[in-house]
Amino acid sequence: MKQILMMSSSRKGNLGYLEQVDDQVHAVLRGRARRVLFVPYAGGITSSFDDYEARVKPTFERLGYALESIHRSPDPRAAVALADAVVVGGGNTFVLLDRLYNAGLVGLLRERVNAGMPYVGWSAGANVVCPTIRTTNDMPIVEPPTLKALNLIPFQVNPHFISGKPVGHNGESREERLAEYLAINPDECVVAIPEGTALHVQGDQATVMGDFDALCFRQGGMVDKLAPGSTFALASI
Amino acid sequence: MKQILMMSSSRKGNLGYLEQVDDQVHAVLRGRARRVLFVPYAGGITSSFDDYEARVKPTFERLGYALESIHRSPDPRAAVALADAVVVGGGNTFVLLDRLYNAGLVGLLRERVNAGMPYVGWSAGANVVCPTIRTTNDMPIVEPPTLKALNLIPFQVNPHFISGKPVGHNGESREERLAEYLAINPDECVVAIPEGTALHVQGDQATVMGDFDALCFRQGGMVDKLAPGSTFALASI
Repeated sequence: MKQILMMSSSRKGNLGYLEQVDDQVHAVLRGRARRVLFVPYAGGITSSFDDYEARVKPTFERLGYALESIHRSPDPRAAVALADAVVVGGGNTFVLLDRLYNAGLVGLLRERVNAGMPYVGWSAGANVVCPTIRTTNDMPIVEPPTLKALNLIPFQVNPHFISGKPVGHNGESREERLAEYLAINPDECVVAIPEGTALHVQGDQATVMGDFDALCFRQGGMVDKLAPGSTFALASI
Repeated sequence: MKQILMMSSSRKGNLGYLEQVDDQVHAVLRGRARRVLFVPYAGGITSSFDDYEARVKPTFERLGYALESIHRSPDPRAAVALADAVVVGGGNTFVLLDRLYNAGLVGLLRERVNAGMPYVGWSAGANVVCPTIRTTNDMPIVEPPTLKALNLIPFQVNPHFISGKPVGHNGESREERLAEYLAINPDECVVAIPEGTALHVQGDQATVMGDFDALCFRQGGMVDKLAPGSTFALASI
């Protein structure tokens, strides 16, 4: 059965890096994996893949999961083919998707996760789970071959959801951006996930985890609240 | 000689729509055009092209320029071919670029502006002047055939520039986004334009207009200030 954790972010409010993700990570990995393969492709832009791995490793080791980054493997496809579980960190979603395509991993990851290999992702790592990355907040600093992504769930997610915009600034608010997305794509909905909240996908259902509601935005300004602890059918979105 | 006005935004702080753009618009259009062709393609997403035209028209009429939107023309290519000047409004940069490609206008606009037809754009309308739209702040709500844009100047611009991020939010700040762009594209620079500031391109030079410095970000964290009133060679960036 498909097991996916889509976390909004690596941090919640002013907490530390990957602090308070224990329950969310255990929900997906406990009893299913002892070792996880880390995919640092969204990061390693202004720092290195080594640095990114070193930053993430202590959290997973504290929770009892050995972690090694895919960049240490001479054959990334073989690493994914053999992994017990995959952890995809945040960063820039366009860079992540571009590197996944360049490494030939998009189809393989899709197959393995659909066949039950657990997947944990946050921020960019949650964006790529969707049909496309067209609801990312990131700057398109590279041009991937396509914006089509892993397509492991049938709807779009918007991570790092935050309402409104800075006073006196005249860019679009997040709600305006999502309203535009839905005006262009009127048959879709976008599930916006505030920092600290996650979706745990199990088979054809998902459960909201964390302290804050996820928000399902629909065309015409309708918003359904999805409360923490609630479970819904993926097809109902 | 090439005449381009790239404005950061349609609004500055808490001022009204297109308030205080008079000097900037006159600098490009006065003596060169009596009628302007408006391109509303970045908008008309949650409202209509008619609404967008009605919103922009009073400012240009007050300044002495008749304005008609390209969506009223049965042949958009002919409208561009015959225009005295073009005004491209803000909205979503991906939608703008996609619609420009769909209407077959990218090459034609590039030719005409390079040959001296004045171009006024703000926000998305400034983004598409650059080699690509890879420094837009917008959500990729549609997927254009390519992110390559009009390529009328040899460097990227980031409109609506604002420093920092909301307290307690863990998305990237604008500076972090630009640092990542420059880490991936180390030979480039990005000119960030705060709201209220504009670049006036004349031939192979540009002048900063408005109250605030434009900021030229380079790889490794170097930032050059381009003060209002200063003129620089496009090739020096």
